[in-house]
Order: sequence, then structure tokens, then C-alpha cells
Amino acid sequence: MSGTKNQIAETVEDYLKRASARVNAAMEKFLPSESEAPSDLHKAVRYSTFAGGKRLRPALALASFEACHGQGEDIWLAASALEMTHTFSLIHDDLPCMDDDDFRRGRPTNHKVFGEAIAILAGDSLLVFAFELLARTGRAECIATLARALGTKGMLGGQVVDIQSEGKKVGLDIVDYIHQHKTAALIEASLILGAQLAGADEETIAGLGAFGNKIGLAFQIVDDVLDLEQTTEALGKDAKSDLAKGKATYPAVLGIGASKDAARQLVEEAKLDLRKLAIQSSILELIADYIITRVN
Amino acid sequence: MSGTKNQIAETVEDYLKRASARVNAAMEKFLPSESEAPSDLHKAVRYSTFAGGKRLRPALALASFEACHGQGEDIWLAASALEMTHTFSLIHDDLPCMDDDDFRRGRPTNHKVFGEAIAILAGDSLLVFAFELLARTGRAECIATLARALGTKGMLGGQVVDIQSEGKKVGLDIVDYIHQHKTAALIEASLILGAQLAGADEETIAGLGAFGNKIGLAFQIVDDVLDLEQTTEALGKDAKSDLAKGKATYPAVLGIGASKDAARQLVEEAKLDLRKLAIQSSILELIADYIITRVN
Repeated sequence: MSGTKNQIAETVEDYLKRASARVNAAMEKFLPSESEAPSDLHKAVRYSTFAGGKRLRPALALASFEACHGQGEDIWLAASALEMTHTFSLIHDDLPCMDDDDFRRGRPTNHKVFGEAIAILAGDSLLVFAFELLARTGRAECIATLARALGTKGMLGGQVVDIQSEGKKVGLDIVDYIHQHKTAALIEASLILGAQLAGADEETIAGLGAFGNKIGLAFQIVDDVLDLEQTTEALGKDAKSDLAKGKATYPAVLGIGASKDAARQLVEEAKLDLRKLAIQSSILELIADYIITRVN
Repeated sequence: MSGTKNQIAETVEDYLKRASARVNAAMEKFLPSESEAPSDLHKAVRYSTFAGGKRLRPALALASFEACHGQGEDIWLAASALEMTHTFSLIHDDLPCMDDDDFRRGRPTNHKVFGEAIAILAGDSLLVFAFELLARTGRAECIATLARALGTKGMLGGQVVDIQSEGKKVGLDIVDYIHQHKTAALIEASLILGAQLAGADEETIAGLGAFGNKIGLAFQIVDDVLDLEQTTEALGKDAKSDLAKGKATYPAVLGIGASKDAARQLVEEAKLDLRKLAIQSSILELIADYIITRVN
């Protein structure tokens, strides 16, 4: 399964759009309206939830679910939970005491609009909503998957090391730790949740998780590169902000060329992992390729 | 079931001590050690988790579980989840952008020791741990119970209205909203979780929830009164801080005497609710009485 850069982009972007429309509708239905009390909290929750974004995690969960011949609507509960979790992490990461970012997805960050207190509570709320949605699947193992990806040995652990590494000269081991935990863990969980909800066997779940981990790391490396190569307008957030903050990134340690090579290699390895599994994986391969097309 | 103030206190304090020892041991076993990476995050998580505290919510969950003839060890997963959730809320409430408190349970607050970023992430982590622990029970309905109690129409909603009401003249409806959501919802959930894990029927679960809601509200009213009547040393946090911050409290609206009456009445109503249920409820009644003995 391969194609030209444009063919890949077109197919994947279509798939992302389809997943995005469905997950947005699911979240729209689930989240309380802005008029429901406490109104300011619901406004803040919705502001960041519906601020655009590629909806990559929902799309990956869906692709994994479909690859495992999943049936039914529960995938949209998981897809919504993943996107809300991701949004929670963005709101808290942007806070003044963390990355202190003023813009996200082309708009002022949550705390710039609603103040720090509401922003923190809106993030907390999205985390709770995510678990509430997953609980509706009736599958405790799915809740365990998300919790593991988020906890102190997952995303939150990655965020701590990220903050603590700012302005320090760190090696590739630390950058890898941050990216694995802060980014790859939730992308891995997206694949696992899709497979779990489809009722896949343990080997397939593990294989899809391994694939997710590799493309998750590749995705973050590409993000590091884009931070250096793109404009603020194209990014929707401050360009070269990683550099300005002295963030631990792949390009900071390896340079841009070697970072791109590392991302490419991860995507190739991920696709090999995928081919070992007895599943229909064409869209997953294309999504893996797509991650790289952003910097090729 | 009744007794003198001292008899009640002795019996309940013994029960609280027993529950406390067991839930502390469970949390000790579950939480990563301080030496595990990321070390600072685990230190911050443990600092606030093991800072003392009455462990009222775990004790109530246990009492509800025992009243419904619950068997097995899963109650300690729920009890730990409740205490971690409570600790999460304290860490975030104490932040400079929220209540800006420097002391809690006689020690500097989490952000005073570890900084705001780590404090926020430690709170987030405790919330995730809580759901991870509940997932181990395999009971999705228990996760739904906790999520409902915490969400924007539960504790987090109460916290928003609490902050927004500071320094304003508000009526009893707003104070009730805050106390119901910020405090009573999680205490109600403690009773419900105990009953759910014991396999109680719907009527018993609902009845115990109603009892929990009333004693939860009474507990918060008593807390408001204690803030005015006790010293900083006895409280372990700044006395009269509600007054200094212009917090929406029962005494601020009704005065101290009428607030105590309201708490007493809630406890009596709660005990009547309990007597309608076909359960062994003596310790629950004593805990209800105990709440009031703190200001009688």
C-alpha cells in the first residue's frame, strides 16, 4: 500500500474529515450546552473542545476499530474520550506556570479567555468527561487503558520531565522519554482502545499498540521539526516557540535532517509491525505515511 | 441507636482509625514510590495523599459496604479512589489562582512545596489514579458514579461557583448549590460506591445516596462554622479564612446559630432516611451524629 504524497494526503485527509465530523457530533451531543450551569465552565470546556484540531486520535481509534472489524457505536465514546483527554492536556500545558502559551489552534488559549482558575477546572472537567464516556462502554479494561496512558508513567509523567528539562542541555534519552510519555502514550492508547472495543485478540491489540507507539513518536518528532520550519500562521501557535523556551526536542539534539530520518525510520518500522498482523490495515499504513508527508 | 457525645466520638473515631489504616495501606501499595521516575511528581502526589486527614470518605464507603453485607477487597480500591479524588480537589483548590491557601492539614500546601506546575500535575495524576483504581473493580457503573460526582454538574461545577461567588453577597440558594456540588456530591458518591460494590439493590443504593447527600451538606455547614469558631492550630489551616476571602458560607448567610440548627436538622433527616432501609446501619447513624458533635 503506497501512493504519491498527494494521493496519501487526499485519502487520509478525507478519512480525518469523516472521523472528525462524527466525533464532533458525538462530543456536541454529550457535552452540556453553554447555557447550562455553571455556564462559564461549560463555555470554557466547549471553547477548547471545538477549537479545530485534526482529531488524529479519534481517527486512529476508528481506523484500529475498523481494521479489527469492530461493530457498533461505542467507538465514538472512546473517540470522544480520547479527544477530550487530548484537549485537557493542551489546556493545562498552556497555563502560565507550564508552557505559558497565548495561542493554540489560531486562537487565544483557554486561560487567556477564561482566566487561570476556570481553565484549570475546564481541563479537569474534560478529564472527568473522558472517563464518564468510557464508562458508558461498560468496559473497565478500556478505562484502564486510558488511565495507564495518562498517569504518572504516561502523559503526566512526560509533562513533568518536559517542564523540568526546559533550558537544560539534555540527551536523546530524555527527549525520547518526554515524547514517549507525553505524546506517544495517548496515540498508542488510541489504537489499543479501537482494537479493544472491536474485540480483537491480545496479539492484535499489542501489535496495534506497538504501531501506535512508533507513529506517535514519529508524529511528535515531525511536530518538533514543523515548529522550526513553519510560520506562526501555518501552525496556529507561536513558531519556533520550542527554541525560544529551550525545549527538549529531537532537532535540538539531532538537528533537523537526522530528526526527519528518525521519523521516517519509525514510520517504516511501524508499517512492518502492522503487516505482521492479520488485519485490514491499509488506512493505518496511509496515516503512518501521512505523518511523514508533513515534513517531506 | 444513640449515645453520649463522648461515646459517639469514641466509637466513630475508632471506626475512622480502622478505615484510615486500611486505606492508607492500600494507597501506599498502589502509588509509585518517590524513587520511581518522575520522582518529583511521585513525591508531590505522596506529600498530599499522606498528609493526614480523617479519611471520612473511605470510612463512609466502607460503612455503606458493610451495611449492605459487602464481601471482598474491592472496597479498598473504591476507598482509595475516593480519598485520592478528594486530595486532587484540595491540591487544585489551594492553588494561587483559586483559594490561594498556604497551609492545609498543618503543612504547607502542595504548590508551596513543589511549585504550581507540579502541584497541578500531581492533582491531575491523583484523578487519573482514582479512575485507574476503580477500573480494577471491573465495574463500569462505579466509574460512572465517581465521574458524575466530580464533573461539571458535581464537584468541579461547585468549585467554579464557589470561586465566582467570592466577595459577593449571595443567597442561601447559591451557598446550597456550592455545598451540594463541591462537598455533598462526593460524600454521596462514597455511600453509593460502597453499596454498588456490595451488590445492593437500586432502592438501597438510592437511599444510601440520599443519606450521604444530607450528611455531606451537614458536614460542610459544620466546616463553615468551625472555620469561624476554631483556631488556626486546631484546624491545620488558616482560621476565619472564609470570612477573610468573603466566601459564600452558611454562617455568612444564616449566622452561626441557625447554621448549626440547619446541620442538626439535616443529620436527623438523614437518619430517618436510613431507618427506612432494610440494612444494618448503626455505624452510619453514629457517623451522622459525629458530624454534629464537632460543633455541639
